[in-house]
Amino acid sequence: MNYVLDHVGIAVRSIDDILPFYLNVLKGELIDRYTSDAPGVEVHVAVVRTDDKIMELLEPTNKNSPIARFVKQKGKGVHHIAYRVDDLDKAISEARQNGVRFLDNTLRTNSRGRRLIYMNPASTDGTLIELCDYK
Amino acid sequence: MNYVLDHVGIAVRSIDDILPFYLNVLKGELIDRYTSDAPGVEVHVAVVRTDDKIMELLEPTNKNSPIARFVKQKGKGVHHIAYRVDDLDKAISEARQNGVRFLDNTLRTNSRGRRLIYMNPASTDGTLIELCDYK
Repeated sequence: MNYVLDHVGIAVRSIDDILPFYLNVLKGELIDRYTSDAPGVEVHVAVVRTDDKIMELLEPTNKNSPIARFVKQKGKGVHHIAYRVDDLDKAISEARQNGVRFLDNTLRTNSRGRRLIYMNPASTDGTLIELCDYK
Repeated sequence: MNYVLDHVGIAVRSIDDILPFYLNVLKGELIDRYTSDAPGVEVHVAVVRTDDKIMELLEPTNKNSPIARFVKQKGKGVHHIAYRVDDLDKAISEARQNGVRFLDNTLRTNSRGRRLIYMNPASTDGTLIELCDYK
């Protein structure tokens, strides 16, 4: 099974403030923008493509959102790395067999149809890693 | 000019401890391993490819290396994102015209022949972004 780097999620304080950097300096293209109000998500998202890969700019919708807590604890910057797999259920099962724990018991589907789950950073030496597919 | 995601640099405490995760869970391939003792670099590097992209695992060689200071300040996890460009000098010049500052006045060449320079995180909303080429 291939683990393809799908996107990098970046915690920002204000999408409007930093978006010009990604568009003008890194010559990115804004391909989507939406807000997820689901409890425990609470994020404004700007999806920027630079050449072959995606950056997700993640702005908290309120000061208690996970992104806001991340910024408070670790500062702004890269929030997570996401790998896309062909068979997400199998990938989760295989990772568990290798001793990896996940932050949630079940995967969830985001508002754009992506199925995703986060590994527990305790299993990844501190990096927040997402596994996902688009089924 | 295309800004192609070249690699993601990840600060780790011990390459030996986390390498099995990247090889066994993310099915990565270890394609290079080296140490840079240059002052201000001081890092052990493991280069892991997962499908089409590279992760650089960065372990400090001593407690005063930049990676060690990063881990102390922000914790383990993603250290930088690197974009590869066709014309690095032009990219630097264009970024400066867009108000971007850099951490160094001149680019440097790492021990694997990559020319690189880091943007000042104050210009990128906190994310450490490298520009590079392989000329």
